[in-house]
Amino acid sequence: MDNLTLQQLGETESLKRTVARLKKSTDAIVGSGDDAAVLPATESFLVSTDTLVEDHDFKLDWSSGFDLGFKAVASNLADIAAMGATPTFLVVAVVIPKTTKISWLEDFADGLQAALNDLCPNASIVGGDIASGEKVMVSVTVHGELAGLAPVLRSGAQPGDIVAVAGTLGKAACGLAILESGNQDFIRSYDEWVLAQLQPRPPIAEGVVANRAGATSMMDVSDGLLKDLHRIARASSVAIEISSKDLNGYEAMLDLPAQALGVDPGNWVLTGGEDHALVATFPTGATLPKSFKAIGRVIQSDSPKVFLDGVEAKDSGWDSIIGKN
Amino acid sequence: MDNLTLQQLGETESLKRTVARLKKSTDAIVGSGDDAAVLPATESFLVSTDTLVEDHDFKLDWSSGFDLGFKAVASNLADIAAMGATPTFLVVAVVIPKTTKISWLEDFADGLQAALNDLCPNASIVGGDIASGEKVMVSVTVHGELAGLAPVLRSGAQPGDIVAVAGTLGKAACGLAILESGNQDFIRSYDEWVLAQLQPRPPIAEGVVANRAGATSMMDVSDGLLKDLHRIARASSVAIEISSKDLNGYEAMLDLPAQALGVDPGNWVLTGGEDHALVATFPTGATLPKSFKAIGRVIQSDSPKVFLDGVEAKDSGWDSIIGKN
Repeated sequence: MDNLTLQQLGETESLKRTVARLKKSTDAIVGSGDDAAVLPATESFLVSTDTLVEDHDFKLDWSSGFDLGFKAVASNLADIAAMGATPTFLVVAVVIPKTTKISWLEDFADGLQAALNDLCPNASIVGGDIASGEKVMVSVTVHGELAGLAPVLRSGAQPGDIVAVAGTLGKAACGLAILESGNQDFIRSYDEWVLAQLQPRPPIAEGVVANRAGATSMMDVSDGLLKDLHRIARASSVAIEISSKDLNGYEAMLDLPAQALGVDPGNWVLTGGEDHALVATFPTGATLPKSFKAIGRVIQSDSPKVFLDGVEAKDSGWDSIIGKN
Repeated sequence: MDNLTLQQLGETESLKRTVARLKKSTDAIVGSGDDAAVLPATESFLVSTDTLVEDHDFKLDWSSGFDLGFKAVASNLADIAAMGATPTFLVVAVVIPKTTKISWLEDFADGLQAALNDLCPNASIVGGDIASGEKVMVSVTVHGELAGLAPVLRSGAQPGDIVAVAGTLGKAACGLAILESGNQDFIRSYDEWVLAQLQPRPPIAEGVVANRAGATSMMDVSDGLLKDLHRIARASSVAIEISSKDLNGYEAMLDLPAQALGVDPGNWVLTGGEDHALVATFPTGATLPKSFKAIGRVIQSDSPKVFLDGVEAKDSGWDSIIGKN
């Protein structure tokens, strides 16, 4: 039965088998199976959506269904964490060729659930949509709750604030470079970095921790540290200065594969985004949460800029239309 | 400037121009521009997601950007209406070739907003995502509120209930047949039916009206009347009988184009789905809202079936993976 295609099974049966792999929400008032889910909320809810497109955001040669499901959930959870909130409910739309085997879709569903189990076990998938198309595409919409806290925006950074990071920087970009090398020995030897690319593990719970610790602004680093710091600088009308010596620890974690590939790991740390680390600003004198490491300062400025070791840094990283820029 | 492509403009500028065409939400606590939107809710919120894929759900030869935006919003609003609820906030993910002109995307955004203005003026778009891919794909996630009402599910139909419909049946399928004929004279002459396919206008406000009138079950007819009645029958463990004479009025509205194409319009009414009419069941003796027309009855049955003029009807219509079935 596992070798049947979606076309052979049809929408209803394919959906049923997919839903069967997911943990049923105990919180939903009305779960999947109706025209909409009905979900509890007090005062407010958060919503964010993010899409992964085959051959633009992933390659099926590299990512299994499981990997793809894991990554789609992980990257979306990070958007809620970045607001200082807790993810609650997700809906998942997947477009897939109708010749795909049901086992691929079941593996995908297992990846969705595994990411929730690992990163945010109280959140659940409450609905979705399967449609057929030539290329695989996954669009996740994630919801969250603030539980009485104020949301942490991009616009709250103040001159004097400390800039700090939770999670890894450049590891996913390093994993991508290993995959792109096509060298099977490297891919086997440096599986830890490859896994960071295929199944990123952002520090989801640290979003609320940062919020409680007084974070004045926050984002998840989805498009690269320099690019996302520029976004905070623009939204907050400040400049940000970071120091390469504070990034040495992130670079050191990439030394082995960087040496094997013969490249400088610094660029991965500065412009690689898919780790979905959290970058936040905290008031001077605030006690940084243990998971956050200081990497720089917010400074007053008439024009929003980012400085690396005193030199103005380019606004480069990942652009969802253009690609690497 | 309007002839620039998305690739020439990049993600930030393309997004900015798109958002500029949309009416800013006055209800959102935090609107677009951060990692997530923060939206008000009391007790609960509804969520549903639906995806349109190029060459499966629409063709760019037939649909303008405006048409596609309109249809994506209209079909999603109908899912909230079908729960007896009011749509509130939407997020829109669009995948699009990077060689697309910005004017197409602006036209698409105008279509999104026009559907809201026409069908549900208090709802608004609070976020989204633009990504590049070979084929166009639109994934909308819509939210709604019940304002103290209970949701109307698929599972509440009771033997004895009246089955009734608000909105049009078969008109969108008729419009599709006209487009598929390739006959430019027909397409010009029967533009009303073509428009029903390209820009469906479901009776969104009637969802809450049906809820208040005591509807026991409801769906929007997205995949065809017979197929969606089967879904209610299965969810409610009942059978449903409808009568073709009660469908004559819907057929009559299709007579002109049906004659021109030389086909029987009955099949469009029974298996055409994209009008997103609301089909609901009401208790015997309930006063049907003016917008609803009775088409049949719920009957007790050990196996969920649909009967047309006393004969068991096939569970046929649109399957999002297989297509027409």
